[in-house]
Amino acid sequence: MSRYFADIEPVTFGGADSADPMAFRHYNPTEMLGDKTMAEHLRFAVCYWHNFVWEGNDPFGGQTFERPWFPADTMALAKQKADDAFDMFRILGVPYFCFHDHDVRPEGDSLKESHDRLNEMADYFAEKMANGGPKLLWGTANMFSNRRYMSGASTNPDPDVFAYCASTVKSCMDVTHRLDGENYVLWGGREGYETLLNTDLDRELEQMGRFLSMVVEYKHKIGFKGAILIEPKPQEPTKHQYDYDVATVYGFLRRFGLEDEVQVNVEQGHAILAGHSFEHELAMARTLGIFGSIDMNRNDYQSGWDTDQFPNSPSEAALAYYEVLKAGGFTTGGTNFDAKLRRQSLDASDLIAAHVGGMDVCARGLKSAHTMLADDALEAPRRARYAGWEADAAQAMLAEGATLDGIAAKAEAAGLNPQPASGQQEKLENIVNRYV
Amino acid sequence: MSRYFADIEPVTFGGADSADPMAFRHYNPTEMLGDKTMAEHLRFAVCYWHNFVWEGNDPFGGQTFERPWFPADTMALAKQKADDAFDMFRILGVPYFCFHDHDVRPEGDSLKESHDRLNEMADYFAEKMANGGPKLLWGTANMFSNRRYMSGASTNPDPDVFAYCASTVKSCMDVTHRLDGENYVLWGGREGYETLLNTDLDRELEQMGRFLSMVVEYKHKIGFKGAILIEPKPQEPTKHQYDYDVATVYGFLRRFGLEDEVQVNVEQGHAILAGHSFEHELAMARTLGIFGSIDMNRNDYQSGWDTDQFPNSPSEAALAYYEVLKAGGFTTGGTNFDAKLRRQSLDASDLIAAHVGGMDVCARGLKSAHTMLADDALEAPRRARYAGWEADAAQAMLAEGATLDGIAAKAEAAGLNPQPASGQQEKLENIVNRYV
Amino acid sequence: MSRYFADIEPVTFGGADSADPMAFRHYNPTEMLGDKTMAEHLRFAVCYWHNFVWEGNDPFGGQTFERPWFPADTMALAKQKADDAFDMFRILGVPYFCFHDHDVRPEGDSLKESHDRLNEMADYFAEKMANGGPKLLWGTANMFSNRRYMSGASTNPDPDVFAYCASTVKSCMDVTHRLDGENYVLWGGREGYETLLNTDLDRELEQMGRFLSMVVEYKHKIGFKGAILIEPKPQEPTKHQYDYDVATVYGFLRRFGLEDEVQVNVEQGHAILAGHSFEHELAMARTLGIFGSIDMNRNDYQSGWDTDQFPNSPSEAALAYYEVLKAGGFTTGGTNFDAKLRRQSLDASDLIAAHVGGMDVCARGLKSAHTMLADDALEAPRRARYAGWEADAAQAMLAEGATLDGIAAKAEAAGLNPQPASGQQEKLENIVNRYV
Amino acid sequence: MSRYFADIEPVTFGGADSADPMAFRHYNPTEMLGDKTMAEHLRFAVCYWHNFVWEGNDPFGGQTFERPWFPADTMALAKQKADDAFDMFRILGVPYFCFHDHDVRPEGDSLKESHDRLNEMADYFAEKMANGGPKLLWGTANMFSNRRYMSGASTNPDPDVFAYCASTVKSCMDVTHRLDGENYVLWGGREGYETLLNTDLDRELEQMGRFLSMVVEYKHKIGFKGAILIEPKPQEPTKHQYDYDVATVYGFLRRFGLEDEVQVNVEQGHAILAGHSFEHELAMARTLGIFGSIDMNRNDYQSGWDTDQFPNSPSEAALAYYEVLKAGGFTTGGTNFDAKLRRQSLDASDLIAAHVGGMDVCARGLKSAHTMLADDALEAPRRARYAGWEADAAQAMLAEGATLDGIAAKAEAAGLNPQPASGQQEKLENIVNRYV
Ligand SMILES: [Co+2]
Ligand SMILES: [Co+2]
Ligand SMILES: [Co+2]
Ligand SMILES: [Co+2]
Ligand SMILES: [Co+2]
Ligand SMILES: [Co+2]
Ligand SMILES: [Co+2]
Ligand SMILES: [Co+2]
Repeated sequence: MSRYFADIEPVTFGGADSADPMAFRHYNPTEMLGDKTMAEHLRFAVCYWHNFVWEGNDPFGGQTFERPWFPADTMALAKQKADDAFDMFRILGVPYFCFHDHDVRPEGDSLKESHDRLNEMADYFAEKMANGGPKLLWGTANMFSNRRYMSGASTNPDPDVFAYCASTVKSCMDVTHRLDGENYVLWGGREGYETLLNTDLDRELEQMGRFLSMVVEYKHKIGFKGAILIEPKPQEPTKHQYDYDVATVYGFLRRFGLEDEVQVNVEQGHAILAGHSFEHELAMARTLGIFGSIDMNRNDYQSGWDTDQFPNSPSEAALAYYEVLKAGGFTTGGTNFDAKLRRQSLDASDLIAAHVGGMDVCARGLKSAHTMLADDALEAPRRARYAGWEADAAQAMLAEGATLDGIAAKAEAAGLNPQPASGQQEKLENIVNRYV
Repeated sequence: MSRYFADIEPVTFGGADSADPMAFRHYNPTEMLGDKTMAEHLRFAVCYWHNFVWEGNDPFGGQTFERPWFPADTMALAKQKADDAFDMFRILGVPYFCFHDHDVRPEGDSLKESHDRLNEMADYFAEKMANGGPKLLWGTANMFSNRRYMSGASTNPDPDVFAYCASTVKSCMDVTHRLDGENYVLWGGREGYETLLNTDLDRELEQMGRFLSMVVEYKHKIGFKGAILIEPKPQEPTKHQYDYDVATVYGFLRRFGLEDEVQVNVEQGHAILAGHSFEHELAMARTLGIFGSIDMNRNDYQSGWDTDQFPNSPSEAALAYYEVLKAGGFTTGGTNFDAKLRRQSLDASDLIAAHVGGMDVCARGLKSAHTMLADDALEAPRRARYAGWEADAAQAMLAEGATLDGIAAKAEAAGLNPQPASGQQEKLENIVNRYV
Repeated sequence: MSRYFADIEPVTFGGADSADPMAFRHYNPTEMLGDKTMAEHLRFAVCYWHNFVWEGNDPFGGQTFERPWFPADTMALAKQKADDAFDMFRILGVPYFCFHDHDVRPEGDSLKESHDRLNEMADYFAEKMANGGPKLLWGTANMFSNRRYMSGASTNPDPDVFAYCASTVKSCMDVTHRLDGENYVLWGGREGYETLLNTDLDRELEQMGRFLSMVVEYKHKIGFKGAILIEPKPQEPTKHQYDYDVATVYGFLRRFGLEDEVQVNVEQGHAILAGHSFEHELAMARTLGIFGSIDMNRNDYQSGWDTDQFPNSPSEAALAYYEVLKAGGFTTGGTNFDAKLRRQSLDASDLIAAHVGGMDVCARGLKSAHTMLADDALEAPRRARYAGWEADAAQAMLAEGATLDGIAAKAEAAGLNPQPASGQQEKLENIVNRYV
Repeated sequence: MSRYFADIEPVTFGGADSADPMAFRHYNPTEMLGDKTMAEHLRFAVCYWHNFVWEGNDPFGGQTFERPWFPADTMALAKQKADDAFDMFRILGVPYFCFHDHDVRPEGDSLKESHDRLNEMADYFAEKMANGGPKLLWGTANMFSNRRYMSGASTNPDPDVFAYCASTVKSCMDVTHRLDGENYVLWGGREGYETLLNTDLDRELEQMGRFLSMVVEYKHKIGFKGAILIEPKPQEPTKHQYDYDVATVYGFLRRFGLEDEVQVNVEQGHAILAGHSFEHELAMARTLGIFGSIDMNRNDYQSGWDTDQFPNSPSEAALAYYEVLKAGGFTTGGTNFDAKLRRQSLDASDLIAAHVGGMDVCARGLKSAHTMLADDALEAPRRARYAGWEADAAQAMLAEGATLDGIAAKAEAAGLNPQPASGQQEKLENIVNRYV
């Protein structure tokens, strides 16, 4: 049986002027930007599910893709899928991959059988990883596809589902730990509601808080050193999801005392669905101290649903990596493509080309961001704008002991009548355009 | 000089079959619902700004309204406005009103003069209030209209604006306290940003947290017993506001240790702009323990901006008051109409009719909600749905000491294979329709 | 083998106070409203696809429904499905149903086999219809689910797909004609594009225009007396659909000279997705002379995708039927429920209850609309608002021969300075609330 | 009295590496692209209203800008404004400008006085234009700001407003003609409705159609050779505007037989508000034969209202000019900046810098688009995708005489079973990224 990507050569760096659609024009892994290589900055990861599991369905249409490993409902097909997946990872030269349990093994007839199969596949991966394959950026559990999760995972009205999820997450954390995964992610696709009419919000949030606390506790118990990440999303599949956006997740973590234990995995498309820019969510995560990792896939601004397309905007990538760099860059996190082909992109070469384009946009954005920072192009005017706050009298207003009436008395005595200064938005946008 | 509403009789309850457009069909203030009258449940308030300050402008058009007190740029006109405003309050029979400093007095040439004028108007109000006028539901400061606030109030890059705001809020809190206001509200219309490119998010959030802490401290210092309320809104006027929605405000309060000191004033239209239903925001506020008050004005679902229209959906009102009742009803809060006429509704009678319709929709919704609760129509199926969680074994999973691996072991040993049960959304929606 | 709905009694009219969830409270088929019964006004139809084909999948989850006829991939199962479907039609007492070819027969190995199977099922239906079953409101072809249509049906880049569609539509029109269907519908789910980058817009619109012209011509050739209907939708499944909304379809029809031959089937949810209210689309269709039929299913205002939920707003139903009545009511058209259960509503009784609730909301809306019209409650103020245009001098400005400079000269000579009059929106909204 | 822009030097081309914020990096007016200069391709115009009339107000705040000509309520101030405006045009080196009557003269006490003042200002402009000033791309009438238009201009319920508008448009067309304007634009900001409840849709559309017909007739009467343009916009200021989008305008034009007489002026931000991409609207206008001109200003994707910001996306500009070039480029049309500063951008230099950045983004986009076309980079794969349609048998299906049943018979006889081919979206997006 021939390999799916047999005809495709490993992707190489061709330089900015290359017209080869299968060469990188910007991503030069070993090129230094500051004190790190581009590869170290970007820490690219490719996801298993969209690339190797999704069949091209949409709400009005069935399978469009034909892959030799479909439907992967036997362990043999699951291994064939793994073989081809690792071929793709090798062709792209990505240092990381990610997976759900559900992506890599057929579900068993029992929890135990499912876990056994997952472990068997983990052994299969481990060997490939040892032989030059990519490392594991994060593992996660699919607790949204099966009908048992239709009304929630940890927030299910049925406590048996909660228990089932505990078993599932434990097994996925074990495997992630065993494969030296650098993070463990929870995306609460069904942790939300379709209608408030049948929902006990109070109870469900308590369940979710309790579950997450146990996940954190288990992480420490097994000595997993990676980060626990929550991926915010406002809606879809449910009408309303509890992990709405970064600020909502932060409030949830504070409520359960987990703000030092859990970080966020921010997806560009989810930011947009929640009414924010991607850079807003990243800046907010940094400010709140919970920045973890990113899913670098976009939605279409004209669509109201999650299209998980490959990134293609150099400008947006520049602003995103600008925030990543301001946050100090990735530690355990990285740049995951939680991206899928358009369902009309049928060919093996489409899979490769889409990643090449996505990686290149990220690399181009990173370079822009790095130079903007190095040039102090945006930070200098920003510092100037807030310079008044550096004065002692200004700082005193923020310090302990300052009071509303104390400040008021001084303001009145001084006869303050502050005059506004230009915010210079267009000039700053022009500066950005010099770099992208 | 004749009064603006001179020709309009006080509105009375005409009964459900009344065709009189100037009579209440549902709002019967003294009618008991459970152990409270409708007036006690609803605690209606009318806002000063939209009714008596706004001139009918929109982004593409100028003044359409012609009121005898315009432009109210002298104290004499400000008092004429107050006379007419209290006439309207009397005609409607509302127990409360609300105002910004900016609504009731022309701004002075100095902070001191502005405060003096505010105090003079407060005296003028106090007399009217003593003579049968409505009480004050809340006071607030307008820190968004003047160009000095264009880049923020407490979050301004200029510390002088921060100081100016301290003086302004102090004076408004003093007046609110003196007039026995039941709440003090902060709406951060300019607390946000137009562009992240010129914004120091970290610094601005710190400023806002510090400011709010001082507001809370000052409240206690002067012995103000009312609640401090934040009104969330995601955007407009700024591209992005820090008080995005209830969950975001909650996280902010937790971060600064203020979650027991500050509650939310939830506006229907702002909930929608943030991607939530109104009932979601109310349920979330209740669950998080920060439910305070409501602004019962809607936007148009086809518009992407804040239209602040009078409520007109009996179904939506029913679901909103259902959450209010579940939260235990209002304590210091109430039902404010932060609503304005369409700019083509030019007449004095439009002002009255709009409030009559709005109050009636609320009363109708309240009655529906009260009966649904009394009938256990929604709560019985909700309890049934979560009944499994009442078992000891289920509760044990949420109790301290439970562990992920402990639960997992039991789930695997039991060979759990949970089967889903119908969520019955349509049946529940049908039940609601029996009550609205 | 027992029937799926065996335990469910036919739904009867229980009256407005009935608390029976399986009884109509408003829909009393034989009750007269004006000169027609409610059944004649509403002309309810139930769709085959959402009720009997859809398995509960969403983009993040698989099958949730378990029906005895699934997967209906044999003719025997297709007939079992038909038996149960007609049971449901009987229980609901609906006078009409609708179907796609794809809904009722498994696809064959060839066009011919597919058509033969469709004909065999049509025979099976015919017998049921003759024995007291409902009539056919409309037939249609599914040209969007199979991967052959992924890039369009009549607008496909591959002319063979165009030919395939011609064969498919012909066979569906033949069957619709044979079963005395009252309309034939085209919904262009894939007639649009994912990206302009690979699309020849000019060519695709020409293909679609040509195809529709041939459909109209074929209708006349076979003597089909029903209407040809286009169902507008702005997007989903494609990023952009050519039949965007009513006004767009009208322009398309004019371009190809088909405006007297084709009408629109307006779906509430699609109106909302296109940025319109449902009543706007209906009023526009009436004004443009192309009003045909309605799909009375809604989306959730917080979701950006097509949820096809059962209608549940009495207010919205009233405004919709108000426009239907103003258009003269349905001729060949009717009220179709292109609605599906939430995927958590698993039970047979959910299917019935959802339709009962939907039919009742429509009946309630119809009654409100009928009374508003009979009372001249909205039309009288509307006529008054435009009364100035009844003057001869006003009409002369609209008549042939009037010129811009002629009118201008008179306006200047008269020194016109028109003063605006209140638009009374809130008063009109209050009037509506007296009727809903 | 010193000039507002006295300190600012004319903007020059500094080359791609220039870091001078007041130099063009891409716009080199005399550089040839194909057979035209960049200036000839782009035909830049600057609008009078946003730059010289708008005071920085937003719905929650008042004036922020301080300009020496404010409030321009005398003819002397109007001339001072004109002096500074033409200074700015000169500094930017734009070949065109645009204005509303309302922008350039204070409204008079009567129609006649208003027209006289407009004519006086036109004389003032004519002299400046003769002395090296820019030409007039288009003139237009402001029929939305004054309260007389609050319920519509030509679609007003009051026929006197219709007559008033006739006089106003005539005077503006006369002035546009006299100044050798190359187009006359109608933007129907109030031609729509706030609520259907008070609207006679049928009547209003007839009024609008009749008005436009008279405008076209008058154009021919006075020998105006420019184009008549309609600018589509879906909403804002009204809840719903009749000129919703390009396809809607096309249907309207067909209905009144004006499709060969009127073209569209497409604004990027309005396209987005209507749920389309800008390139969609441009492609649609080209396909329908009504492409005229563009307003190159964007909205913020996170805002639901019209922000009219300067363009800043090189990628979006490339795709837009690609469609302009495919349409054959501009004839009478051009690239207008219907753009305004953010209200915090207070300074004279902000006005210049914003235009410099906007012009540069357009020039950069034009160059990308021109090269993509010259390289056949997108057109070659597009032709290949539709190549099957070039066959005679395929063309025969689109030709007169083809029938649905004829094609069907052949399809069945041939046993057609078409197989899909990849749509290659990602590869095409990667190609675009090579050029931007
Ligand atoms: Co996503
Ligand atoms: Co993701
Ligand atoms: Co509001
Ligand atoms: Co409010
Ligand atoms: Co639909
Ligand atoms: Co439909
Ligand atoms: Co605009
Ligand atoms: Co424009």
